[in-house]
Amino acid sequence: MRLGLVQFAPEIGEVLVNAASMLEAASAAAKRGATLVVFPELSLVGYPPMDLLRDEMLQEICRNALDFLANRLTINALIGAPSWEDGRVYNAVYWISDQRWSVVGRKVLLPNYDVFDESRYFQAGDQCSILEHSGKKILLSICEDLWAQGADFKYPIDPIQKAIEAADPGIHFILNMAASPYSIQGIPRRAYVLQSTATRWGIPVVYVNQVGARADLIFDGGTSVTFPGKDVQEICPIFEQACALWDTDLNQCLETFRWGGHGKDSILNPDSLDLLQTPEEIILGDHFNSAEITKALCLGIRDYLAMTAGKNVVIGLSGGVDSAVVLCLAVMALGPENVTALLMPSGYSSERSVKDSVSLCRLHGVAYQILSIEDSFNAVRGTLNAQWKSKPTGLTEENIQPRLRALFLMAYSNQNGAMWLNSSNKSEAAMGYSTLYGDMGGGLSVIGDLYKTQVYTLANAWNSVKEWIPESILQAAPSAELRPGQLDSDTLPPYPLLDAILMDRIEGGQDEEGLIQKGHDPDLVRRVLGMLKHSEFKRHQMPPVLRVSSRSFGRGWRRSLV
Amino acid sequence: MRLGLVQFAPEIGEVLVNAASMLEAASAAAKRGATLVVFPELSLVGYPPMDLLRDEMLQEICRNALDFLANRLTINALIGAPSWEDGRVYNAVYWISDQRWSVVGRKVLLPNYDVFDESRYFQAGDQCSILEHSGKKILLSICEDLWAQGADFKYPIDPIQKAIEAADPGIHFILNMAASPYSIQGIPRRAYVLQSTATRWGIPVVYVNQVGARADLIFDGGTSVTFPGKDVQEICPIFEQACALWDTDLNQCLETFRWGGHGKDSILNPDSLDLLQTPEEIILGDHFNSAEITKALCLGIRDYLAMTAGKNVVIGLSGGVDSAVVLCLAVMALGPENVTALLMPSGYSSERSVKDSVSLCRLHGVAYQILSIEDSFNAVRGTLNAQWKSKPTGLTEENIQPRLRALFLMAYSNQNGAMWLNSSNKSEAAMGYSTLYGDMGGGLSVIGDLYKTQVYTLANAWNSVKEWIPESILQAAPSAELRPGQLDSDTLPPYPLLDAILMDRIEGGQDEEGLIQKGHDPDLVRRVLGMLKHSEFKRHQMPPVLRVSSRSFGRGWRRSLV
Repeated sequence: MRLGLVQFAPEIGEVLVNAASMLEAASAAAKRGATLVVFPELSLVGYPPMDLLRDEMLQEICRNALDFLANRLTINALIGAPSWEDGRVYNAVYWISDQRWSVVGRKVLLPNYDVFDESRYFQAGDQCSILEHSGKKILLSICEDLWAQGADFKYPIDPIQKAIEAADPGIHFILNMAASPYSIQGIPRRAYVLQSTATRWGIPVVYVNQVGARADLIFDGGTSVTFPGKDVQEICPIFEQACALWDTDLNQCLETFRWGGHGKDSILNPDSLDLLQTPEEIILGDHFNSAEITKALCLGIRDYLAMTAGKNVVIGLSGGVDSAVVLCLAVMALGPENVTALLMPSGYSSERSVKDSVSLCRLHGVAYQILSIEDSFNAVRGTLNAQWKSKPTGLTEENIQPRLRALFLMAYSNQNGAMWLNSSNKSEAAMGYSTLYGDMGGGLSVIGDLYKTQVYTLANAWNSVKEWIPESILQAAPSAELRPGQLDSDTLPPYPLLDAILMDRIEGGQDEEGLIQKGHDPDLVRRVLGMLKHSEFKRHQMPPVLRVSSRSFGRGWRRSLV
Repeated sequence: MRLGLVQFAPEIGEVLVNAASMLEAASAAAKRGATLVVFPELSLVGYPPMDLLRDEMLQEICRNALDFLANRLTINALIGAPSWEDGRVYNAVYWISDQRWSVVGRKVLLPNYDVFDESRYFQAGDQCSILEHSGKKILLSICEDLWAQGADFKYPIDPIQKAIEAADPGIHFILNMAASPYSIQGIPRRAYVLQSTATRWGIPVVYVNQVGARADLIFDGGTSVTFPGKDVQEICPIFEQACALWDTDLNQCLETFRWGGHGKDSILNPDSLDLLQTPEEIILGDHFNSAEITKALCLGIRDYLAMTAGKNVVIGLSGGVDSAVVLCLAVMALGPENVTALLMPSGYSSERSVKDSVSLCRLHGVAYQILSIEDSFNAVRGTLNAQWKSKPTGLTEENIQPRLRALFLMAYSNQNGAMWLNSSNKSEAAMGYSTLYGDMGGGLSVIGDLYKTQVYTLANAWNSVKEWIPESILQAAPSAELRPGQLDSDTLPPYPLLDAILMDRIEGGQDEEGLIQKGHDPDLVRRVLGMLKHSEFKRHQMPPVLRVSSRSFGRGWRRSLV
């Protein structure tokens, strides 16, 4: 049996577009000798479909798309799509063969933590099913079904175990069709689950995952085959749409290719896609792979732009590391010709920050404009002073500045159809150390899931290869430059201490007691947790954040505003 | 048996504060002769607790609070709180008696539609239980358990039916402990469910609901007793914390009282709380009760302020109906002394809009400031013109104006610690006819769940009692006044047509096909659905919206951004 494993990037809700693209991939795989083509979980509708599943029309459109595929496919196919049965919806696997389609599997374990809400929409299946094809038994599983032993959540059953114990011996391989988003910690955890499952049951595991970014969620793919006692064998490049041809008799990957319109497929060299070669970094006890994160964020920018505003972006450069990193990511993702920087100094901006910002733009060939906010700031203050009995306080004046910058960025955005990329980091967002409708604005938060220390790690990793960011930007003490001599350290604890607490709280799920037991300073813990809690209202109005950790702000972090 | 039915307003996450308040209520009820006091669903932790349920510390704090209550209560109590059992969490009922507490009920039906995500956090109970007390059998149910026949969602079992059929005869009453948020359509639907359940089983239904607003969600209470074949008998005033003393032998409410510290309880006249006497209005086929909605929104403002910023608010007055209605609601909720209006005219503002805004403020004794945005607008344009090759487009210039107004409102907010109340309506929010970081900003969206036509209905209902809003504000054609002669009708369909489509789409859940079948113009339907879809990114950054419909923007409306 020759499997075409399609690391596929569906668009959410664009069922007919997805079906047409699936047909193209399947045809390319058939031409190269595949006999069965496999698409990831919910490929027909994209992931997560959310309330779209409640629209009646979706059911009819999916049926039409399945008919379309069944009528045209020249090979057998396994496709992830919803199945409507007696008023319930299942997260299902369809089998297409001989111009017919039917449901052959239903997801058993529905994740309901972090960004997942599957019980909201789906009914759980009773068990993983076994598909017999070409004299071989395939255990069909969908994403979380494989994670009974490895997920954050403790499930009462292990559907893989149940299916293997119930089946006659002779299961050829376990197939897992997934829509599993990327996170820094996710790739090693997934490798562990794939290896331990293959080894435990003495059966290979074939894994096909979605790829591409969908607003906050980035899918890395990671399509692979894992044999008992062996390492995970990745057979598609991560973060790329591709198809791998796997021979189940030879037990090897014959080739990996990109499919294109009119038979213009291209063979891939799995190493050719590395943007940057950087050493793996270990920070804060976490596996932090700068090259991988760089690719993830570039994909996040590129796909979100492609599905919304086009490909032009605008970034406000402050002279600090955050906006410099966002500019570099935009350059990598979109090319310098699609990036514009606005430098918007005030009287409090240092000469260094303006000079360094200009150097950064020149380094990358990025167009920039210098729009001083000074005249506007004076006009606003003039109007307020004329009406108010008391002079604007320090806080009031500080906040006016980022809001004027936001106004210029949005004016540029309106004028040129460019999306403003937000430059806030996760440490600031967590502490509310940022201005609503000011630096918290923008169409997409690019590094809102990276702590300040991680932003430095990323920048330093790049600079270890070549100069991406002028060194004096990395050396400058972090400052919002909203009053003379202001430093972040006036308001916030030192970033290494702060980030360690935040990571244990947010990704680690520790509460106050747990954090103190872990050795963090009790007073600092209480101060940080207080600031975290009291800034929920700001994060409520944040743009979507590209998710690269196991717990990012947005749909994976749900806390009361009161 | 004398029940103290406590229409209770817990704070989310403030377990010990809630327990202390519960003790106070129970003591007051005991003093008045109650033998069993009943609190609503999840009273100990507030609703919805969301990810707080994942914090390990919560479990210990709840246990401490239950110990605290058990040690001090002088009467028996039924209390809604989470129960942690073998790594699972149930939405449970605790029985406190003789200084001990134990779990006596677990919610069976967990809602997962609209604003509800209970399967994300809770394990479903197997069945509704029967509590025997003082020789009487009480069927214990929690909120959704009563809704197997009436909810949007089709449940496979009816736990009330199951419990009644399994029990020996002689159930004295069905008790329902709820945390059921208010909506315009919700009160008649709830009445239907209470009546049909009582009548179907020939058993009275005793209903105790939470009250108070928690960010977007407003709980109305509506604590009641319903006999078979009879109308619902409400025994607590809606939107107010109160306790009703119900005698199960006499089958009557002995009294309803507010409890206070140090025995300062006060007896309530259920009619005394009507702010306004207005006729019920029927608009767009919906039961629209202006007095009720007014109270709901006032409660929403008051409680959100109390739990966040204090009690001062600032509102930008445009001369239109939306901001006028928000100002009136703020005056009703907080008193005129806590409200400040900013009038921020530009060269495009009509004389009428400024004059009418001043009249509105004078009518209500609200302080106002006139802060022209003209100087700031000119300064911004000056900076842009000096740098840009092309002149700012119409759209760019239009958006600068609301963003400057937002900047002034936030400057006032920072200076005075007042919360900026947003004035956008649901029609604008649905169409994206609004400016991000401009008129879409603010700490709380007060009327973001009312369509434009409903805003007029509300204003007219008030004005039929006395002049709340100058008539010329209601007569003026809706305009954003961002360019000369601009009218909403240049961009949007007429509001009655638009709102009818939106209501069928959003509250009614109809998709394109369904809307056309319902008789809406096909071209208009496609245009409206297109604008609705393409403005998700704006609504993603909206403030929390006070929910008064069965489907509001925010956590009840989950659509992909791409």
